[in-house]
Order: sequence, then C-alpha cells, then structure tokens
Amino acid sequence: MARYRILVAYDGTDFSGWQRQADRRSVQQTIEEALLPLSPGGAPVDVNGSGRTDAGVHARGQVAHFDLAREIAGPSLRRALNDRLPEDVRVLRAEPAPPDFDARRSAHGKEYRYRVWNAEVADPVLRRFRLRVSRALDLAAMRRAAASFVGEHDFAAFTANPQRPVESTVRRVFSVEVAAEDDSPEVEIRVSGEGFLYKMVRSMAGFLLAVGTGKERPEAVAEVLASRVRTARVESAPAHGLILWRVWYGDARVLPPSDRDLFPPFGPSPAR
Amino acid sequence: MARYRILVAYDGTDFSGWQRQADRRSVQQTIEEALLPLSPGGAPVDVNGSGRTDAGVHARGQVAHFDLAREIAGPSLRRALNDRLPEDVRVLRAEPAPPDFDARRSAHGKEYRYRVWNAEVADPVLRRFRLRVSRALDLAAMRRAAASFVGEHDFAAFTANPQRPVESTVRRVFSVEVAAEDDSPEVEIRVSGEGFLYKMVRSMAGFLLAVGTGKERPEAVAEVLASRVRTARVESAPAHGLILWRVWYGDARVLPPSDRDLFPPFGPSPAR
Repeated sequence: MARYRILVAYDGTDFSGWQRQADRRSVQQTIEEALLPLSPGGAPVDVNGSGRTDAGVHARGQVAHFDLAREIAGPSLRRALNDRLPEDVRVLRAEPAPPDFDARRSAHGKEYRYRVWNAEVADPVLRRFRLRVSRALDLAAMRRAAASFVGEHDFAAFTANPQRPVESTVRRVFSVEVAAEDDSPEVEIRVSGEGFLYKMVRSMAGFLLAVGTGKERPEAVAEVLASRVRTARVESAPAHGLILWRVWYGDARVLPPSDRDLFPPFGPSPAR
Repeated sequence: MARYRILVAYDGTDFSGWQRQADRRSVQQTIEEALLPLSPGGAPVDVNGSGRTDAGVHARGQVAHFDLAREIAGPSLRRALNDRLPEDVRVLRAEPAPPDFDARRSAHGKEYRYRVWNAEVADPVLRRFRLRVSRALDLAAMRRAAASFVGEHDFAAFTANPQRPVESTVRRVFSVEVAAEDDSPEVEIRVSGEGFLYKMVRSMAGFLLAVGTGKERPEAVAEVLASRVRTARVESAPAHGLILWRVWYGDARVLPPSDRDLFPPFGPSPAR
C-alpha cells in the first residue's frame, strides 16, 4: 500500500457536500469512484479529507489522502483522476505522501474565505460564488468586530448543532480580515484558524455581515462569544459564498505568501 | 412613447445567443418577456441590442434600447426588470434615453475580452468563463502578433460566413492587448474597435492562441489579413471564453478609465 495526497478544487453548487451520503452526490464519493479503475482488482478506496464542507460550499484548496496498492507518479495520478472526474471537481496536484500523513490530523490550520458582492444588482456570472448584499457595508465596523474573533475562544455561540457532538467548543482563530478594493463591489472575509466547528465560519461571516449592515454593533461579538449559547441572533451566512481556501501542514502561524509554498514537495505547480 | 436604454450583463452559458430565435432561449426574448408586464396593455416591446452575441458568449456591458408607452424612473425600471428576469441576466442600469438614441447605430466602439486559463488543470469554478489552454503561452509572441491587428484592415480572413452578408469586411481595430499577471494562470485578450464582423473577435483570439502555442508565427497575422480569404488556418476560439465587455457612446478613441464614466448620465452606479 502506498499513501497519496491530493489538492482538490470544486464548485460546490451541485454537491451535497464533501461527505459521502447515501443517494446524494458528494465530492468524497465522486473522487472515490474516479479512483476505482486505478485500484488493483477494483478494491474500494477510502478518500479522507482535511474536513467536511457543507452542501453548496466550494473549495479551492481541499486536501485529502488515500492508500492505493500500486505505485504511480503524481502527475500521472493527477491526470488519470482528472480524466475521470466530472468538470466541477479538479485535482490540482497529486503526490505520494509519507505513510503517517493524515489530511485531517496532520493539518496545522485552515483558511476559509467568504465572498460578498456588495451591490444592488448581482453579477450573473459570479452569482453561484458570491452572496449579494444590497446595503452598503460598513467595513470599518466589520473590521473592529472581526478583531474580537481572533485568539482562543469558546465558539459555542458560533456553531450549529453538530452532526457529531464535539468534546470542546474552544478553538483558536489566527486572523480574520475583511478585504475590499476601491471601486469594486467585492468584499472578502478571510478567516484562518487551527480548526473550526460545524458552521462556525458561516456563523462568523453572518454576524460580521449583521455588523456591516448596522443590525449589530462591533462590540457585540465579544458579548455573544461570552454568552456561549447559540441563539437566533447569530445567523449562518448562505453556503454559496464560502470557499475552503487552503489547509496548512507546515508551521500554522506563518501564513505562506503564496500558494506555491503550501506544499513545497507537492509535485509541480500548474503550467505557467 | 418614451425611449429607454439599459446596461445588461449575462451568463451566456444557457442562451442560444442574444438574438431572438424560434424555440430557443435568447437574451433578447428573455428581456422582452420581462418587459411585457410593464408595457401598457401588454403591448409587445422590441428590445434592440448594440449587436448580437453568439450562443455561449457572455456580456458584462451589453447595451440595448426600447420604447415603452409609459414614464418610469431608471431605478424603478431596473428593479422591475431584475425582479422578473432569470438569475443569468441582470440589468445593471436603466434610464430614459433621447428619442434618437440607438444602441447599435449610436455606438462608437466596443470592447470584447477573451479569457484564457493557461494551466494544465482547469479551475472548476471558472470553467464556464475561461478557455483552458494547457501549453504555456508565449505572451511576447502573442503581443507582437496582436499589434498587426491594430488599425483599419480588411478582416475577410478573420470572419465566418455571416448570417447576413455585409457590404464591407473592412473594420477599424483600436487596440489589442494581451494582459497577464505574474503567478496567475489568467491571460486576457482585450480587443476594442469601431465594430466587428461575425465571429471576428473569436477568430482573432483563436489565431493569437495559435501564435501563443507556437503553431503560427507573429508575422502570420499580416499575411493572413492580406490574403483576405478565410481558410482552416484560422480557427474561432470557443464561445465560452468571450465576454462583450463594454460599448462606447462617447468619443470612441478615448478609452474611459473606469466603467463609472461610461454613461455619465446613465443613472446611479451600483451600491458602494
């Protein structure tokens, strides 16, 4: 058996999420099916992601590992998978991994990005990948609120009832940035942390948007965190604005300057 | 009767083009149907675009005019249309226009952009809006080739058999830029000109890509233009990479610095 890891991007629109489910189209199962013809004797392959993404959530940097009873070079594995995968999932890189590499347990951190189209009219081309918000967002207020999320906190008020109960709702958030460009309706909420609870990023994004539209004050973040109880005051932002941006396996505190550095030994970069 | 003009964006993926056609979904007819409930007595409304776009071609800045036997403010018209239009068409602006404004005849120029994803693996999120080209493009060669298109030329070799024969195949191209950013697989071919023949931009883009991949030399543009005969040497690039970016109604020689300036009196800009 040889272990492999893959860097995966997907358009989450037509998936019921990462996780395999009976009778529903999942990214995990789609990749497992594409691997079957590559597996000696057609033995089923378990694909293990760095974490689940919900129905409708996209990924640009999901990482997964699996074992295969054959030797295959990274570029050949990538090509073989992409030839078999539907167009809404792409393997960006593939390579052999150390036997103890575990996409979930070896991860040191993750970054999610929540994308907003802050304009009265939606962009028809980006409509599946941006939440449209008509009211002009108060970015300064959102940035003040975002700062209160950073650090180690009990995020019980910013998670939904998980499918699997968790032992602790304490998580460490490295940074929350609210990025925007002049003269563009795009606003991006970038959240990185050691790990996230179920619907935690969407709950944070939903609350930051409530601050941005004036429904909540920036100081409310600290109050709601301290309450440690999820109430209707916290709304999860819709899935289609969220993207799993990247997963780190190096020093989680050092944000890499570019994607090229994410997996130094992770096979060749895309052409150009 | 009052004349109106609208600025329209669409995702061309699921349209058979701009032009109304029996039994096929067109952007023109979709807008005409959305206008019906706004038209006194339900009188049919003719929507006249600045030009046709082919099946699968997108638009960010299509302009159209129509007459309506009622007075309605621009923002109300925009809202009423967007409420009735499907998500893949959006009216970005709407306003009353002078009675002699004609979206096609009043236009002084147009800009199209052809978008390429130059990498071995496609981006699943952008797959409907980028042509993927695996081989690393020689941008310097493409830029040399692009320069030969600029100016007034007979473009007979760079058009397909038109649905309606044209009197002259001479057209003036203002500029052809090949834009790319370091560390990004995006390459954009920006073509602006006084007017374009049927499939002219896609033929130009297809030839520039042939130069970029080494199939043709940059000097071949001048030769093929001079031949004035369309041959198999010129291939039209696929529709899904092409976007009608904007139409000018001011001085066609002066490229406006931003979209805000396109229609100074064209109603308020989108929020933010």
